[in-house]
Amino acid sequence: MKIKRNLSMLTDFYELTMGNGYLKSGMADTVAYFDMFFRKIPDAGGFVINAGLEQLVEYFQNLCFEDEDIEFLRSKGIFSEEFLDYLKNFKFSCDVWAIPEGTPVFPHEPLLTIRGPIIQCQLVETMVLLTINHQSLIATKSNRVVRAANGRGVMEFGSRRAQGYDGALLGARAAYIGGCIGTACTLAEKEYGVPALGTMAHSWVQSFDTEYEAFKAYAETYPDGTLLLVDTYNTLKSGVPNAIKIHNEVLKPMGKSLSGIRIDSGDLAYLSKEARKMLDSAGLFDCKIVASSSLDEYLIRDIISQGAEVDLFGVGENLITSKSSPVFGGVYKIVAVEKEGEIVPRIKLSDNPEKVTTPGYKRVYRFYDTNSDKARGDLLTMPNETIDTSREYVLFDPVHTWKKTVLKDYYVKELQVQVFKDGELVYKLPTLPEIKEYSEREVSKLWDEMMRFEFPQKYHVDLSEQLWELKMNMLQK
Amino acid sequence: MKIKRNLSMLTDFYELTMGNGYLKSGMADTVAYFDMFFRKIPDAGGFVINAGLEQLVEYFQNLCFEDEDIEFLRSKGIFSEEFLDYLKNFKFSCDVWAIPEGTPVFPHEPLLTIRGPIIQCQLVETMVLLTINHQSLIATKSNRVVRAANGRGVMEFGSRRAQGYDGALLGARAAYIGGCIGTACTLAEKEYGVPALGTMAHSWVQSFDTEYEAFKAYAETYPDGTLLLVDTYNTLKSGVPNAIKIHNEVLKPMGKSLSGIRIDSGDLAYLSKEARKMLDSAGLFDCKIVASSSLDEYLIRDIISQGAEVDLFGVGENLITSKSSPVFGGVYKIVAVEKEGEIVPRIKLSDNPEKVTTPGYKRVYRFYDTNSDKARGDLLTMPNETIDTSREYVLFDPVHTWKKTVLKDYYVKELQVQVFKDGELVYKLPTLPEIKEYSEREVSKLWDEMMRFEFPQKYHVDLSEQLWELKMNMLQK
Repeated sequence: MKIKRNLSMLTDFYELTMGNGYLKSGMADTVAYFDMFFRKIPDAGGFVINAGLEQLVEYFQNLCFEDEDIEFLRSKGIFSEEFLDYLKNFKFSCDVWAIPEGTPVFPHEPLLTIRGPIIQCQLVETMVLLTINHQSLIATKSNRVVRAANGRGVMEFGSRRAQGYDGALLGARAAYIGGCIGTACTLAEKEYGVPALGTMAHSWVQSFDTEYEAFKAYAETYPDGTLLLVDTYNTLKSGVPNAIKIHNEVLKPMGKSLSGIRIDSGDLAYLSKEARKMLDSAGLFDCKIVASSSLDEYLIRDIISQGAEVDLFGVGENLITSKSSPVFGGVYKIVAVEKEGEIVPRIKLSDNPEKVTTPGYKRVYRFYDTNSDKARGDLLTMPNETIDTSREYVLFDPVHTWKKTVLKDYYVKELQVQVFKDGELVYKLPTLPEIKEYSEREVSKLWDEMMRFEFPQKYHVDLSEQLWELKMNMLQK
Repeated sequence: MKIKRNLSMLTDFYELTMGNGYLKSGMADTVAYFDMFFRKIPDAGGFVINAGLEQLVEYFQNLCFEDEDIEFLRSKGIFSEEFLDYLKNFKFSCDVWAIPEGTPVFPHEPLLTIRGPIIQCQLVETMVLLTINHQSLIATKSNRVVRAANGRGVMEFGSRRAQGYDGALLGARAAYIGGCIGTACTLAEKEYGVPALGTMAHSWVQSFDTEYEAFKAYAETYPDGTLLLVDTYNTLKSGVPNAIKIHNEVLKPMGKSLSGIRIDSGDLAYLSKEARKMLDSAGLFDCKIVASSSLDEYLIRDIISQGAEVDLFGVGENLITSKSSPVFGGVYKIVAVEKEGEIVPRIKLSDNPEKVTTPGYKRVYRFYDTNSDKARGDLLTMPNETIDTSREYVLFDPVHTWKKTVLKDYYVKELQVQVFKDGELVYKLPTLPEIKEYSEREVSKLWDEMMRFEFPQKYHVDLSEQLWELKMNMLQK
């Protein structure tokens, strides 16, 4: 069962004032195209992991205004009865195309395109952005942390310091897409199937008179998965020796073995190495070491490079809030309107060239090298263009147009899939494990040089010649 | 109507494994005391605005486990039937004391204290932290931004870049407590009564053939509150002149007047000053100027110091995520257990003195100077201590004990109020406007020196002699 929430009113108030205005001006049914895209990668990273589409689909499907919503809006005294009637009988009827969850994506390409009556496109803006911005932020951060862990597991442990309940819950979902193996959040397993794990807090240890008694009680309750928190008093002098004693005195007689220890404070590199030696000396070679405590991708990389003996990392606040880069700046811009059946492109100008939009309804292709199976670049095209893969294709940089890449032996994939047609869902949502697996596969098709935290290689997102010409013509006007 | 969500399963998985363990070990009914407190103020500020209690009260009141929750937990294969029965018949029975929402609070003082069966205290940990951490973070940030605006209004505009739906919704609530005058989030008004406002996006302007037509359609729809976004094409050459034309050609003939303009890009200091001159020249002295675009407390302070002519600030992503300091690190620690009716304090040791907890069930008092009505310091005491305000009181620093402050002419206020008694709500929740007003009043009782963004004056949170001695004795053991 999913949490049932009607989030239709989670919209910026101006979407409603504009909706009312479109209706009054006779423009409500003007068919418009909006693109959702972003301009900068959080943490100045090499790519973003796109996430949140499933929740957005739920929102589109549940979009409706209840009597109390209408009453509330009426009480504001600025909306026409015609508009309130429109909302009361609201039926989502747009076309939606989107890049599937888990795909590595890049600045300036439309993660989502929506076509429909402008009044509807406008109304959904806030939720489109909020949903995709949040989950893409966390999936991207999670992927960074997982890359730093270099094959060791990463658990998402941040619920308590997330920004709100969905920050915790959907954050855990996004972190899983990005590569975490699980979460501490129980509800995230129940709702989304993200594996939830956890053993004990310091309070467990403190609520007994001695650490040994606390460990003993835990081992007797969970002999098959005894993982002991060893840093309440003193990790190396008390915690680890007591854990070994528990193995010898409680678990071994039952034919069981100590599963692991967790270190949650102090110098994790030093403590884990010393603890490993002590465990190995006691013959506990299979006992895992879990480390947590203000970890992020940089600290994990550092302690691994210092030989830390950690099998599993628990990462909290720095992941669940993307602390070092906590905003994903996706935007939602009108790119065209239909006039007498024809698509008329629109452009948003700005003194800042980065902020000029690419006009028109368009398509997004990814080019892969046939031999290496690595992604070579993405291309935005006009809707009617085709790519003949039997011939060379020349990509060129839309800013520095003399920078060209000639592609041979390539194949292309269209990135967006149609999700809604006339308001009906036409896309089979993948399961969460499918998304995670797909994401891992697609990330493996990126070059190693894009994985760096510092100055990663920039990926090409280019415009087709036709699209580039359209943009230049509109800019010149 | 409130959004109905059962968040009982939004708990770290280890709260459940510990709960099951407490029951098995016969310790589930041991009465424990837990304090929720924080160690550091976000952005290295002078104080925190405490927020989130109302949502926490709702959670405590709704705490229950449904059949499907029980089924889900049973499927994990590690919980005893006794524990699942316990959850099925769960009834919250704790005592809760808390500092009311909107109060300025400081490191190391308990914002919330809970007393009850340890199994219950443990179960609620995640939600206590998540709820208070999130809203206190945003209320604190909001207060900083509002202080920077120095009397000008601040609107919270960040929904689209919040971290999840509650990040937007409860973030808007917290921002209002912190001093914002409203939000862009419609649902935040409907659910919590935070005034929602908003007019138009660039897409409105772009969806018409000309800026003038777009402005005209808007003015005709909203003649009583025409606020026009003037930066779609060129603020000073097109937007402001068109806005003035609209006033003269559309509004004036109707006996109305242009309410305001909004500038959402470019140099806000320069553009607002130039726009002000143009509006004044046209006789539009009452037309307000709203500024938005990546604002935060520092940029607002800067552009005001440069003479920006802004009446109202719209602040988005930097406020709703507390971008410069996006984690509020509240913790929840066991401080005592009852043994044979006696309160036995517990302490958490750490190599890091900052992380050593203050043991025991305690009370929190704030001392105010009778003459200035300014707060002089907070004091943690043993539960049975009384403060005789007819006599001098000597506060001393718990670390540098030679630092003493002798108080005369003071009055004291106990900061925590009892919220639940044996699981029953005994506190009348204030309304949101009451919280906001109370907060403003309490902040006005702090010294100006604590308002600085850089190196604000540190406020005293001291221990009574008895409590200090208890802590020292426990540390020596």
